[in-house]
Parts: sequence; C-alpha cells; structure tokens
Amino acid sequence: MNRPDHVHVERVRYADTDQMGIVYHARYFEWFEAARTELMRSMGIAYRQLEEEGVFMPVVEAHCRYRLPVKYDECIRIKTTIGEVTRAKVRLDYKICGENDDLARGEGYTVHCFVGKDGKPRRAPEDVLVFFQNNVE
Amino acid sequence: MNRPDHVHVERVRYADTDQMGIVYHARYFEWFEAARTELMRSMGIAYRQLEEEGVFMPVVEAHCRYRLPVKYDECIRIKTTIGEVTRAKVRLDYKICGENDDLARGEGYTVHCFVGKDGKPRRAPEDVLVFFQNNVE
Amino acid sequence: MNRPDHVHVERVRYADTDQMGIVYHARYFEWFEAARTELMRSMGIAYRQLEEEGVFMPVVEAHCRYRLPVKYDECIRIKTTIGEVTRAKVRLDYKICGENDDLARGEGYTVHCFVGKDGKPRRAPEDVLVFFQNNVE
Amino acid sequence: MNRPDHVHVERVRYADTDQMGIVYHARYFEWFEAARTELMRSMGIAYRQLEEEGVFMPVVEAHCRYRLPVKYDECIRIKTTIGEVTRAKVRLDYKICGENDDLARGEGYTVHCFVGKDGKPRRAPEDVLVFFQNNVE
Repeated sequence: MNRPDHVHVERVRYADTDQMGIVYHARYFEWFEAARTELMRSMGIAYRQLEEEGVFMPVVEAHCRYRLPVKYDECIRIKTTIGEVTRAKVRLDYKICGENDDLARGEGYTVHCFVGKDGKPRRAPEDVLVFFQNNVE
Repeated sequence: MNRPDHVHVERVRYADTDQMGIVYHARYFEWFEAARTELMRSMGIAYRQLEEEGVFMPVVEAHCRYRLPVKYDECIRIKTTIGEVTRAKVRLDYKICGENDDLARGEGYTVHCFVGKDGKPRRAPEDVLVFFQNNVE
Repeated sequence: MNRPDHVHVERVRYADTDQMGIVYHARYFEWFEAARTELMRSMGIAYRQLEEEGVFMPVVEAHCRYRLPVKYDECIRIKTTIGEVTRAKVRLDYKICGENDDLARGEGYTVHCFVGKDGKPRRAPEDVLVFFQNNVE
Repeated sequence: MNRPDHVHVERVRYADTDQMGIVYHARYFEWFEAARTELMRSMGIAYRQLEEEGVFMPVVEAHCRYRLPVKYDECIRIKTTIGEVTRAKVRLDYKICGENDDLARGEGYTVHCFVGKDGKPRRAPEDVLVFFQNNVE
C-alpha cells in the first residue's frame, strides 16, 4: 500500500531570507520541524503531549540538499514521509516543493531518538512505535 | 560617578541578514541578549547560575530604534548600561556602534522582571539587586 | 467607521521556544512581520511586488510588551491594525491573542519608512499611501 | 603535511536554546557558517569581498550529527577543515568540541558551489581555488 505523503504548507517570511535574496539554508530545518509535527498530529500523535508524558524525540542527525532557490513570499509545500522506524530511532524524510508543482527545491531528512525527562535514551512507547510503523513509506 | 559602558562585540553573520542586504531587525534583540549576559558576567553575575538558583529574568518589554543599516561581516559594538532598577524590574539600555566609531546604528532597551521556577513573580535576590543598583548609569 | 482587525494565525514551533519553556522574545517580531504582510495582502498590496517596484519598507522602530507566556504548539492569533500613516512613515500595531480568547499575550508595534533601491528615503507611492490611509484604525 | 584545524569559538545564547534545555539543532548551521567565514578569513579570503567581486558560495548540502547536548552559556569550539575541493564545489567539515576538551558534541559538513551574481553556476576563481586546495586536510 502506498502511504500518502503528508503535506505541510509554509509561506516564506522576510526573516527566512538572507542577502543572497533566497532562504537561508538553516531555516529549512525549522520547516522540517513544523512539517513533522503536523505529520505526527495527522497520525494522532501530538508531540507536545508526548513530551508531557516524558517522551522526547531530539534530533540526532539532520541533512538537507538544496536544489533550487526558495524566495521570499513563496508558498512551499513540505512533503513528509516516515523513512525508517526502530525501537530506538525514527527517520523522517522531507521534500520541499512549490505551491503548484512537485519540482524539488530541496530534500532532507532528520533522525530522532527517544529520550526520557532525564535525557537518557529510552525505547519508544508501544503506541507511538505502532503509529510510526503503520505509516512507514 | 560615571559608570563605564560595558561593550560587547559581535560579528554580523550571513544568517543575520535579509534580502534587503542588511541585518534583519529581530536579530538585534539576540545581540542585546548576548550583551546583557556579558554585562552581568562582568559585574560578577552569571545569569546561568541565577537560573540554577531558581531566579529567572524574562523579558517583559523590548524596544529598538534602527538608525543606520548594519551589514554582513561588520563588527559592531553593543554598549550596555543599566537604566533603572527596582525590586521588581530592571531596565537595560543598548547602543549599537561601529567597530571604530560611536555613531549609533541602533538603540534599544529591554525590561526584565524576576520570576521563580514556577513562573510566578518574585523579588530580586538581595545580592543581585545590589549588583544592579551599584552599576546603574 | 471601525476597521476590522486583520487576524493572522501562527502555530508555535519548537524553534520558537527557549529553555524557559516559552517563546523567545525576539521571535514575536517574526510573527509581526508575517502578520503585517498578510494585512497588506488583504488590502491588495503584495509587499513582494512593492519591492519589485523599488519600494522598500524597512523597520525603523520595533516594540513589544510581553504579558503572558506563549508556549510550544499553541496557536496564537496576531491582530494587526494600522496605527498611523504619513508620506514618510507607517506604524502598525499588533496584539497577540490565544486561539479562542482575546486575552493579550503581548502587544507591540513596528514603524516603517519608505526607501528606494538605493536605500535612500523616498515618499510612499500614492496608491500605497491611499491603501494605508483608508485602513487606518 | 597535516593542516592545523581552524578553531572558532562561540558562546551559546539563550536564543539558541529550546525548551528541551539544549541548543536547537538548526542553530548549529549558523555556527558552521561563522566558523567557515573565519577559516576563510584566516586563509586570506574575506567571503564578503568575494561576493563584492561577484562570487557567491551558496550551501548546496548541509549535514549534522548531534552527539552530546550543548547547553546555554557554554563556550564551544568549532574546528573547521577543508574536506574536498573541485572547480565546482567545496566541502567543509566541522567538529563541535567543548571549551576544554575535544569530545565531539556534534559533527557536520556543508557543501558549497560557486555562482555568479545572476545565480548561475560558475567556476571558482583561480586564486580562491588555490587557497582552498592549499589548505585541504
């Protein structure tokens, strides 16, 4: 079965741009964050609530390839898919597209582990794990 | 007695710029933060330690007037002075100057209150209060 | 006649928070930026297009009063009104409210002048001026 | 011959932290930027001047692995080395260490191409290329 991509839309702010007249590269990771939060919400997991229950998912790896410049005031769509899931880690994949086309402006991924309130690694809660596994691309 | 200004130097990053080719206005407030932390350190107060002791100083008001553009890779000097101190609040004043001149690129202030770990207002600890009062401009 | 507020919604990102567990104060100015861009768009002025026509509106003053903490994953509404308009300057006023209530989390303003591609002050184009004047609070 | 690492120091700002009480992952890329600018300056290349001469080095790929949390007010050292150089691309490698130890808090790289004022790919200027090649790790 093909899992549908989860799509999150962002409008480029002036704050996102740099003097090259394009979006500063580090900003893409904030979009990735917003996109995965919405992906999780769409699956029934509010990340905020996870933290309230003592489960944190810090980023342990982040990557982005920049293909085409993204400009001020553009609407971009971030397509997020779940790439890999284990008890210890989750990898999410992102593709940044234009408002009306699927041409990749950029592509990236983030890897997350699970830690407790004490900052120590822990296994993913069973229900969270199942949620992720059921939605792996 | 005239208190000497505390001067903190920052080098403008590409990340600080926007497509107007100048520093994005919100970034000044990060410089103000870095500058007041160093001012406090120079007075013998490590803000980090204050927090560890349960004293937080959130920003309750922030203001900046932008006079001259600040550009990529410039070194700027932020002069910080203590403007006003009460048991409940502290106001810090900032002036952003060039590396080699005192021409104001911008001027601003931040007002801070004191809160405890519970987020509720509290009075400034006696020693912190004295430190600030002894250094009021 | 009472002009209706323009309302812009933002969801708080993790990137917006700091270790106090609330939104970092400088981030509010990015919300203000997004909000005024949408206000202008709703009035028929695409700021991006203004710049393409050689009209820039840099921030010359920015202010914010922080009243109640804003937390991760909250939806906030930014109500923007046009406070004052002259040929030389425009002041925009912002109020940050909760998703479902009008309690002010924060209030602020930004003042903008008009400059040309050369960075030199210029008067507001007639149509832009009229747009702003017709929508003053 | 072993090229010495170039070391750039940053003090963690409150603005860099998130509600996990550690530095937000996207911020590392701003440190990488500051670090490579200083590396280039130490080799005799002011990136600002390069741009003035019409040579831009946008990021085409960025990666970071996060090993240990970095906290507020810490001083970190970013060691930058030149990983790979061709006429079309340069890869820079970064290692984030503590103030007094070489334990990696994080490691990453950025890949840069060369473009002209028109945003179109161009070859690296001869002297820049030589500078980079002479300093490859």
